[in-house]
Amino acid sequence: ALQHIFKEIFKAGLEIQKDDQKEKLLVSRSMKSEDTVVSFGSAYIGGGSMQLIAGPCAVESYEQTAAAAREVKKHGLSFLRGGAYKPRTSPYDFQGLGLEGLKILRKAADDYALKAVSEVVSVYDLETAAEYLDIIQIGARNMQNFDLLKEAGKMNKPILLKRGLSATIEEFIYSAEYIMSQGNKEIILCERGIRTYERATRNTLDITAVPILKKETHLPVLVDVTHSTGRKDLLLPAAKAAMAIGADGVMAEIHPDPATALSDSAQQMDFSEFDDFILELQASGLLRMKETV
Amino acid sequence: ALQHIFKEIFKAGLEIQKDDQKEKLLVSRSMKSEDTVVSFGSAYIGGGSMQLIAGPCAVESYEQTAAAAREVKKHGLSFLRGGAYKPRTSPYDFQGLGLEGLKILRKAADDYALKAVSEVVSVYDLETAAEYLDIIQIGARNMQNFDLLKEAGKMNKPILLKRGLSATIEEFIYSAEYIMSQGNKEIILCERGIRTYERATRNTLDITAVPILKKETHLPVLVDVTHSTGRKDLLLPAAKAAMAIGADGVMAEIHPDPATALSDSAQQMDFSEFDDFILELQASGLLRMKETV
Amino acid sequence: ALQHIFKEIFKAGLEIQKDDQKEKLLVSRSMKSEDTVVSFGSAYIGGGSMQLIAGPCAVESYEQTAAAAREVKKHGLSFLRGGAYKPRTSPYDFQGLGLEGLKILRKAADDYALKAVSEVVSVYDLETAAEYLDIIQIGARNMQNFDLLKEAGKMNKPILLKRGLSATIEEFIYSAEYIMSQGNKEIILCERGIRTYERATRNTLDITAVPILKKETHLPVLVDVTHSTGRKDLLLPAAKAAMAIGADGVMAEIHPDPATALSDSAQQMDFSEFDDFILELQASGLLRMKETV
Amino acid sequence: ALQHIFKEIFKAGLEIQKDDQKEKLLVSRSMKSEDTVVSFGSAYIGGGSMQLIAGPCAVESYEQTAAAAREVKKHGLSFLRGGAYKPRTSPYDFQGLGLEGLKILRKAADDYALKAVSEVVSVYDLETAAEYLDIIQIGARNMQNFDLLKEAGKMNKPILLKRGLSATIEEFIYSAEYIMSQGNKEIILCERGIRTYERATRNTLDITAVPILKKETHLPVLVDVTHSTGRKDLLLPAAKAAMAIGADGVMAEIHPDPATALSDSAQQMDFSEFDDFILELQASGLLRMKETV
Repeated sequence: ALQHIFKEIFKAGLEIQKDDQKEKLLVSRSMKSEDTVVSFGSAYIGGGSMQLIAGPCAVESYEQTAAAAREVKKHGLSFLRGGAYKPRTSPYDFQGLGLEGLKILRKAADDYALKAVSEVVSVYDLETAAEYLDIIQIGARNMQNFDLLKEAGKMNKPILLKRGLSATIEEFIYSAEYIMSQGNKEIILCERGIRTYERATRNTLDITAVPILKKETHLPVLVDVTHSTGRKDLLLPAAKAAMAIGADGVMAEIHPDPATALSDSAQQMDFSEFDDFILELQASGLLRMKETV
Repeated sequence: ALQHIFKEIFKAGLEIQKDDQKEKLLVSRSMKSEDTVVSFGSAYIGGGSMQLIAGPCAVESYEQTAAAAREVKKHGLSFLRGGAYKPRTSPYDFQGLGLEGLKILRKAADDYALKAVSEVVSVYDLETAAEYLDIIQIGARNMQNFDLLKEAGKMNKPILLKRGLSATIEEFIYSAEYIMSQGNKEIILCERGIRTYERATRNTLDITAVPILKKETHLPVLVDVTHSTGRKDLLLPAAKAAMAIGADGVMAEIHPDPATALSDSAQQMDFSEFDDFILELQASGLLRMKETV
Repeated sequence: ALQHIFKEIFKAGLEIQKDDQKEKLLVSRSMKSEDTVVSFGSAYIGGGSMQLIAGPCAVESYEQTAAAAREVKKHGLSFLRGGAYKPRTSPYDFQGLGLEGLKILRKAADDYALKAVSEVVSVYDLETAAEYLDIIQIGARNMQNFDLLKEAGKMNKPILLKRGLSATIEEFIYSAEYIMSQGNKEIILCERGIRTYERATRNTLDITAVPILKKETHLPVLVDVTHSTGRKDLLLPAAKAAMAIGADGVMAEIHPDPATALSDSAQQMDFSEFDDFILELQASGLLRMKETV
Repeated sequence: ALQHIFKEIFKAGLEIQKDDQKEKLLVSRSMKSEDTVVSFGSAYIGGGSMQLIAGPCAVESYEQTAAAAREVKKHGLSFLRGGAYKPRTSPYDFQGLGLEGLKILRKAADDYALKAVSEVVSVYDLETAAEYLDIIQIGARNMQNFDLLKEAGKMNKPILLKRGLSATIEEFIYSAEYIMSQGNKEIILCERGIRTYERATRNTLDITAVPILKKETHLPVLVDVTHSTGRKDLLLPAAKAAMAIGADGVMAEIHPDPATALSDSAQQMDFSEFDDFILELQASGLLRMKETV
């Protein structure tokens, strides 16, 4: 029994070391108590405001992207998202327009004075993407693509890091640390639902991850309501919950004509639905958009 | 290929039948469009107000329970919870005071003009429990104890049904139907977190289950913030999310001296913490308590 | 930091206490090193032989059950299963023939000199069921129906306890302890798949639960290949894995005409398929049936 | 209702299309009925033999790696594994020796006439790694790093692809297709446990994934018993189950002195444990090693 006690004390010692290591992470709240605010000229993410990042799942054409940009602008929002490099389960599914998509997104964002957000899936594309984007997204499937994380950490461009499909919150934090350990301090976290047994939703939105991430790190935390729920009828309730629990923003997908979309057609809002979405959020009193472009 | 098509059409037919069956459930919104409101004299659950149900994990003594009742009453709340029959993983853990616990809970509730809520785990105890309780709770572990559900369905007493640890929302709805099919129409649903791989929280609060249950059924839906998170620091954020997303109420555990509690000592709030919890909810503007006792 | 160290040592102390408690469970291997063998006259479960328990999902008629019994007997097997009380997700699905089903099962078992196994879902039915059955099964949904476990613990009849859909192995062991703590020492455990995100199978067969249960307890451990996989094409591979990893037996469902079965029609083997199943197991050299009736 | 029927038929049509697409994958059994056998001179993987791939978690030094190689050779095995690029949760954990590790592994393998297997985590390292390795491994965290998959598909070197921590079997198959669609036909799949709620094992070994993968694809399928269980006491039982269910091989980690290992110290076998492991597998009759180097 005495041997057992020593073993447990040894294990306790290891735990303490591990906790100490966690407290010394650059992303840790204990290393920097004030909120990280990622600033984009007039707009910013983090620090008490609420941002909505909207746009199509995939950039398909200038017309489609510009229409979304106009819609985003109409509501006084600042950020336009749109996929150019699409990570798809099957190699035969539409993989995005690539560089051409980045150029379209940039032009649409510029034409409506918006900031552009898009995902990069390859280290080869980081440099080029940085020329066209205001925020580089690293998606759920690449959350532990440490090579991509490290290279993103060397960029001088904000990184939006999504939680992996079955990543623990601890692993998520360490992945952010991979980026920051290379020098890039502008990191935005995004909870986007985790994989569970439940099939009523595409994923299960782990809503309490938001306050945990806000407590353990000093980074802004967004909630992607589209990919977490996969259901249009849940976007508004999920956004309300995200805002009430303290998220710094919400991501959602919109498309001028979802039925014809090349990906995620069932879960993108059309513009009329998005108008209602914004209206209801404003009516709820939860939307605290302070910044102007 | 043609054979394959017929097979798929046959499968589609089965799906349609299944959907039809679901739409004809007594608990289904399509069978009764208006919200079910469970009324307790002056207090009620459902129909647009927000109820807080609080009390100790387990009834340990009259003093402890009365102290909690006084605290509940102080904040103008109407419902006191307290466990008398405790379902515990180990047969050697404290199993609750049983009938004695019910009597104590009843007395404390009466002394402070509150409604009493407690869990029943055995069909043998239903009748007796009904004499002492205003709401009979069926816990997560018994969500598919169909025998208990059927017997509860014959009672003339509101039933608070908690979602099983790994129950799908569909299974949860069918379990409510087991109760209602026996005649009891006063059913309150409660999301209490589901079991996933994530270890930062005791369970994963499936927050979007709330709007799904509100859409598919006409029943009131509560959120148990204590058992879903298992962390005191997440009770307030989780309660805010629950209120924002449209829950009809929140359940939380409080104890005059959590450190000495016979169960769940780490996750019960003391009264000072509960005062802050209530204050912050009121300050958030999310708490819409309309009823008075 | 010192305070932290004391806290960790305190936690280590709690862990040790918990481990000590586990080692003192009646079902624990550390309390009884030799295997529990549950004996039924000439046949037995545990102790190095391999048993196959087969029969229809639900008892539907004497003809159907007797046909299955004949098939079971043909292969020299000793145990016939058949559901009389069926736990079903929907209250409107076929709930089994009840007492009538038990009587049919008993008669079919007697007519072919087999032992009868069936599930009981209500404490009210335990006494009656014990008159008709050789083994009383407690199903996955009732693994933490502690009331039923305690009553089963007072019976003088072997109990086959299935693992809950999302029960940890530790919880499973404690549920067995609920039974044994009441005096009943004849308990057989059954791994039947756990609920995960994977949809290729009905559940995920947790095959390494078998050696863990064999190591931590002295009880026999079976594997239910039908409910864990839900796919006929996986019954044989799953049975081979179960036998290779040290299970004491395998449960599988067979039906004279699966297409017309009142439940689980897609996953029951017809007799020709069962003949192949047995043949292939014998050819693999993994089937070690030593006993004869 | 009629509208509903048409909708369902439309959905059925989509399902058929999707199934058709799956049947036309290059990795699909329906496109190539005979087993793919990946051949390495005298040794091969697939086609009915049973291979054991063993070696240290990480290459730490020539002495350590050569000791493992000698041990592997002693048992007549053909494949030596050893990590040079280690994907680690924390950026501050040992990340492997990199190129130096590859060189050591190659030399140790050559000195004992073994084939060398190691993981690559970056597209930048593929070319160099191909010079030193006989099999390039793509790990669980990179299973949907489509960039890496595509580049691996252009290599003239066998790829060992591990299943992602929470990947469905369908996603796993599509990831293999990403590789094969680029021309590389020599792909070996490896089940390594999935992430579930259960904590008794590091991951949950999804043993029935093996026959499903063998049925749906023509590729060899291995089981990594070390990472799926994370427990030394389960390596042998898991290996037996893998062999019985039809796996083409088993991967396991060994180290001359596990206690001093720079990673995974708790789950690597020392050589005496590995001797027993081999002996018991041979005694079980399940080990069918036909080839010799």
